[in-house]
Amino acid sequence: MAQQHLDPTDPMARTVTGNALAGYLRAQATEFLRALRQHRETGAGGNGSAESVDAARALRRSARRISGSLHTFRPLLDPDWSEGMRPELAWLSGTLALEHAYAARLERLLNALHRLSGSPALPSQPTAPTTTGTTGTTTPTPTATTTGTTTGTTTATTNTANLTVGAAKAGALLDRQLTLARTRAHSAALQALGSSRFHAVADKVAVLASEVPLTPSATTADLHPLAAAAEERLTDAVAALPLLTAGHPYNATALVHGLSPDPAPHAQDAPWHQVRLLLRLHRYAREVIEGAEATVNVRLLAAGQALNRHRDAAEASAAAASAARTPRIAPATAYALGVLHADQRHEVEAARFAFQQSWQKQRVTTP
Amino acid sequence: MAQQHLDPTDPMARTVTGNALAGYLRAQATEFLRALRQHRETGAGGNGSAESVDAARALRRSARRISGSLHTFRPLLDPDWSEGMRPELAWLSGTLALEHAYAARLERLLNALHRLSGSPALPSQPTAPTTTGTTGTTTPTPTATTTGTTTGTTTATTNTANLTVGAAKAGALLDRQLTLARTRAHSAALQALGSSRFHAVADKVAVLASEVPLTPSATTADLHPLAAAAEERLTDAVAALPLLTAGHPYNATALVHGLSPDPAPHAQDAPWHQVRLLLRLHRYAREVIEGAEATVNVRLLAAGQALNRHRDAAEASAAAASAARTPRIAPATAYALGVLHADQRHEVEAARFAFQQSWQKQRVTTP
Repeated sequence: MAQQHLDPTDPMARTVTGNALAGYLRAQATEFLRALRQHRETGAGGNGSAESVDAARALRRSARRISGSLHTFRPLLDPDWSEGMRPELAWLSGTLALEHAYAARLERLLNALHRLSGSPALPSQPTAPTTTGTTGTTTPTPTATTTGTTTGTTTATTNTANLTVGAAKAGALLDRQLTLARTRAHSAALQALGSSRFHAVADKVAVLASEVPLTPSATTADLHPLAAAAEERLTDAVAALPLLTAGHPYNATALVHGLSPDPAPHAQDAPWHQVRLLLRLHRYAREVIEGAEATVNVRLLAAGQALNRHRDAAEASAAAASAARTPRIAPATAYALGVLHADQRHEVEAARFAFQQSWQKQRVTTP
Repeated sequence: MAQQHLDPTDPMARTVTGNALAGYLRAQATEFLRALRQHRETGAGGNGSAESVDAARALRRSARRISGSLHTFRPLLDPDWSEGMRPELAWLSGTLALEHAYAARLERLLNALHRLSGSPALPSQPTAPTTTGTTGTTTPTPTATTTGTTTGTTTATTNTANLTVGAAKAGALLDRQLTLARTRAHSAALQALGSSRFHAVADKVAVLASEVPLTPSATTADLHPLAAAAEERLTDAVAALPLLTAGHPYNATALVHGLSPDPAPHAQDAPWHQVRLLLRLHRYAREVIEGAEATVNVRLLAAGQALNRHRDAAEASAAAASAARTPRIAPATAYALGVLHADQRHEVEAARFAFQQSWQKQRVTTP
């Protein structure tokens, strides 16, 4: 078990001190600054190019790793600095993540509609939205569905060409709503990157790239107990999941409450989302400990991918349900959105099964 | 494998001749007549009592067995008699099956709606429809949904009390449509049982109860080759099923074309329905061969139940899709019907997985 690897009482475990943490944080801070430079060079103005998307992803990636390491190894770092830094990094990566999330959600939903209509899948890259500049306030409301002048409508016309009437209308509606949300998120991200709040974070990260504020005792402290604690939080949270049910295919639990009047009916998803975050923290702690010798744990990776899929499908199903509450839609549109909602809840259930399978495999095959 | 049991070249196999077939057919004919008498005594007038339902089920059960044996052991029976008899038995069991099928379909769909709304399940027995006598022509049309005077509406009020608005309206709509269909099927069954066509079948079955029209050579002919051929037709049809896909949970194939414009989009279901019928013929052939020593093969039973569930879920999903095409329904109703349709298509996929599991077990564990 991976836990043994981090067992602080294991006499074979190489001692890893705060110096390793400092090295990891410096490397991530450097990567953050590199990605930021790339993002500015490749068009922060919002042309949505592949380079710009890559740069934003790299920014989020390093922000998450810095923030996660600050959390796991908190006792080894200057507390004032650490507590000031984490919410700012969370704000930044959250703001940067939204645009991509809306784009991916739309792509997932349109692909599902095509699959459900028996027509070929979409090209994998949806069209980038036209930027509205940094004000982010000029886009139309989601119910203005008849004008057909937004970029979303253009995308929908392309992507829904092979769909039948109800599915086509559902696709066009989702395209309008999610493209609008994406455009707003894009503007918000641009605003954020130009804000003094962001510049303060960037300055702090620039300092971190050369100087990590460790506590006096941290340079000789062993990192293993803190990493083991992070893993224990993960295993405890996994133990509380309904894995026995999840391991029975077609248990039909993910769609329970699918027609409930509760606007947030899927409280059952929350523990899985929590495990997703804890699994990420565990992975980052392993990266810190293993340093240059870090290897990809295929099973942890598969488990994490299953939880990402769980989150994506849960959010896509909610978007379909939300679109169905749009006033004055046709019954055929609502019907297609109902099928789509259930399809994505089925994906939620499939992702739980996949997680259970990879998690069990991990416990069984690793001696 | 069960096939070895019926292997005609197996020297250990007990010879079973046409006499066994004659005995089986006489017993089934006697059972048919008993069930018919019971059905008349317990209220063919349509009070829908448990006894009357049991009697109708027993009638169908023996009619299917007689018809199936006539098919499998055709070469041993007088061809004119046999060919005249089978379509009449098929007509009779088909006519009698419809009322029960509509009632079971409604119950399945209302239970699913309750599950999807997070409310407790229904009581298991829906209300029996009020009979319209033997004319079967006085029931309202499915779109006359506002009068609220049919028994269907009463049932819906009871059964949908805990449902949310969209689910409640969907439940009420399905209740009206399927109760109407059930009432018509009930009338049609009563008409059939009073018809001269039925009396001719009953007379033929009465003769069969004492005298089976075997061919001259049948009394000494071995039944095993014909039973083995029936099993071979089954195994060939199973081999043509996409069992590899079905064995991968959450393969998402059952819902493909769920939004297709094709009014009969689920051509993928047909081979499974065909295997269901061939499995039944195989089971009846085993009953003929094994006679009084017949044992229940638990695995065949499980495979058959999975295929029944497959058929029921496929028909329920079609009923939900059909209800969604009712003119002038509210978007919330259509949305709930879309969720319900997808839910039942998931059930179709789950049933295929269950069949694959029981079928594989059969091949692995029986030496």
